[in-house]
Amino acid sequence: MVKKQSIEKNLRFTPKFDKSGLIPAIAQDARTGQVLMMAYMNRQSLDLTIETGYAVYFSRKRRKLWKKGEESGHIQKVEQILVDCDQDCLLLKVSVDAGQCHAGYQSCFYRALKKGSSKKLEFIAKKAYKPEKIYKKGKSGSINSP
Amino acid sequence: MVKKQSIEKNLRFTPKFDKSGLIPAIAQDARTGQVLMMAYMNRQSLDLTIETGYAVYFSRKRRKLWKKGEESGHIQKVEQILVDCDQDCLLLKVSVDAGQCHAGYQSCFYRALKKGSSKKLEFIAKKAYKPEKIYKKGKSGSINSP
Repeated sequence: MVKKQSIEKNLRFTPKFDKSGLIPAIAQDARTGQVLMMAYMNRQSLDLTIETGYAVYFSRKRRKLWKKGEESGHIQKVEQILVDCDQDCLLLKVSVDAGQCHAGYQSCFYRALKKGSSKKLEFIAKKAYKPEKIYKKGKSGSINSP
Repeated sequence: MVKKQSIEKNLRFTPKFDKSGLIPAIAQDARTGQVLMMAYMNRQSLDLTIETGYAVYFSRKRRKLWKKGEESGHIQKVEQILVDCDQDCLLLKVSVDAGQCHAGYQSCFYRALKKGSSKKLEFIAKKAYKPEKIYKKGKSGSINSP
């Protein structure tokens, strides 16, 4: 077993997958700094991401590899892959077009908790595109959601 | 059961905790946009975060609530809590001082995969403080890591 201090200090990339074989990966717009989404990768999707230079996740719902944008066209070109101190979370700096979330927004984080409330959200973004025009099956996010 | 479309479109805050009762929460510097860390919250830590205005996580290792900065002083003042389309991930915009990671860096993401390599990392940040001076027990991150 690799020691905690060693994991934090050394320069070997040893991403830690959980017992389901997954590691969370945050996608951040390399240009604007906006956090776009969080999804999961398994070993194979991480390898494909590194190999191809485009983000490939693992869909927990569909139990299969999910190349971001395979249906919508909203792909993510990976500029840099960062890893955290414990090597159990990845941060992808990506180049993207407009509209990364299958719900039509640039980021999946398009709502925020209202000030002073613990239950009510408010929209903090406007839609970047109309998802119903892109997803052929007519189901929002049928193939493009985590 | 609340429908997927409803979860994506409505303005009720219904965060989805996994079967361990946890939800991932990304902390992002509200001023610079830098992603600082990813940790987990349970219902109680989320409620405390909303109530107090300071980030409280749930440490999976120590199986207890973890007020960020309780030992180090590197607290996170929460400016805004965002939730993603599926409501299964949170994004906290936080105001912070220098040195958020227990390893001494501003962000936990202080290493990146080297261009063209799938195994080698490189440091992309300089230390913001000396952790050994802050953590009294002499063990890096003894109480301040996820």
